[in-house]
Amino acid sequence: MLSLTPPAARTAESGLFISLEGGDGGGKTTQMPRVHEFLSGPESPFVGFSSGADGSRPGGAPTGPPVLRTKEPGGSALGAELRSLILHSDHVADRAEALMYAADRAHHVETVIRPHLDAGGIVLTDRYLDSSVAYQGAGRTLPVEDVESLSMWAVGGLMPNLTLLLDIAPQKLAERRDVGTHDRLEREALDFHERVRSAYLERAAKEPDRWAVIDAGAGIDEVTEQLRDAITGWARTHAAVVAEKLGQL
Amino acid sequence: MLSLTPPAARTAESGLFISLEGGDGGGKTTQMPRVHEFLSGPESPFVGFSSGADGSRPGGAPTGPPVLRTKEPGGSALGAELRSLILHSDHVADRAEALMYAADRAHHVETVIRPHLDAGGIVLTDRYLDSSVAYQGAGRTLPVEDVESLSMWAVGGLMPNLTLLLDIAPQKLAERRDVGTHDRLEREALDFHERVRSAYLERAAKEPDRWAVIDAGAGIDEVTEQLRDAITGWARTHAAVVAEKLGQL
Repeated sequence: MLSLTPPAARTAESGLFISLEGGDGGGKTTQMPRVHEFLSGPESPFVGFSSGADGSRPGGAPTGPPVLRTKEPGGSALGAELRSLILHSDHVADRAEALMYAADRAHHVETVIRPHLDAGGIVLTDRYLDSSVAYQGAGRTLPVEDVESLSMWAVGGLMPNLTLLLDIAPQKLAERRDVGTHDRLEREALDFHERVRSAYLERAAKEPDRWAVIDAGAGIDEVTEQLRDAITGWARTHAAVVAEKLGQL
Repeated sequence: MLSLTPPAARTAESGLFISLEGGDGGGKTTQMPRVHEFLSGPESPFVGFSSGADGSRPGGAPTGPPVLRTKEPGGSALGAELRSLILHSDHVADRAEALMYAADRAHHVETVIRPHLDAGGIVLTDRYLDSSVAYQGAGRTLPVEDVESLSMWAVGGLMPNLTLLLDIAPQKLAERRDVGTHDRLEREALDFHERVRSAYLERAAKEPDRWAVIDAGAGIDEVTEQLRDAITGWARTHAAVVAEKLGQL
């Protein structure tokens, strides 16, 4: 019988791949530049690894390997065009949309993520494959295993070393914004976001070694602190992996 | 293990789906309007079937069900945008390209082909899934079974009732155009088109009931005659299918 079996999940041969995940409104946009700054600065647990060239900036402060900040969908020029096509078309067939997001991801990995990892760098992405699986699982228009298979085939099995999940109850977000759950549409939207959250938490529970769940209900600075601690903690418990992927000075 | 298993191949519940296939330069562009005219005219073997409304044109000549002529890639507005993106991008990752063609096909089937078949009409398409499989098999950048699986998933298993293959030896085409095979590039191009031809012929041999192989090396009018005969012959040997799909008057 005809079937598509994607390569097994695996991390890159070199470099470190970190993704930030979570539902809408959970603070990813606020935290992305903060995580990027942390990873690029002197407090990064990756300072001193060889990919950072001479291990210092012109100013003299020690740094780690170069950090590339990117995002999905639309993390490459082609991907941005695909995303724009999806958003500006009157109607896109469900399967066509899933295939277009997978195409965006395939191109993003081959032309943006892989080259930076191959050069021994650190890639930080706002959303990756887990987003498609969590959102598709919540939306339920297509079998979620199909969407995961498509994405895994698209990326040749490449998975992040570490995934940081900004987790918050959608009900709490709604209260914070004073958005009620008074009518059917609001209730449905809330149900959807609750299913997205559950899908994320399920995936995190299955692969605890890859995921760090962050309480995104805390204050902004506190969330940043949790993210830094999670990265530092992961680097400590995976010292051998870090040394292998980034190369000790 | 993660895998994507597309629905099994099947024809539509109603309507007739006919594809024209073949390598470049084999005459598809010339023959498409002729086949369309034949299927829409009084000599069509499908005249008298109920989907043709009152079975006649305003002028009084009897007609069959309405015939929709379309093409791949780019048979829908979204598909045309996807095709344009592929053609005008500096570089598209192999997997991204395969996924974009599959997306084009998914959207084409859902928004163009299926509605016309559901209404009991006849769809005539210039290229379909077999093109991707034959060309990808010849190009060998990706596993051909993967490309077929993606396409089958994209179209939900929908396959044509009849596929007309315009078959001609690439060597003969090259001679006709006085294109030599003098240098390495010309020889490589010829080899590629020979692999495309072999892939088509292999697929035709595996499903003789669906395929009609036409000798495209004959004169233009003779090829048209062969196409008409193939359609009429198929309609005769599949009278029960035709009656079931198009509905007897």
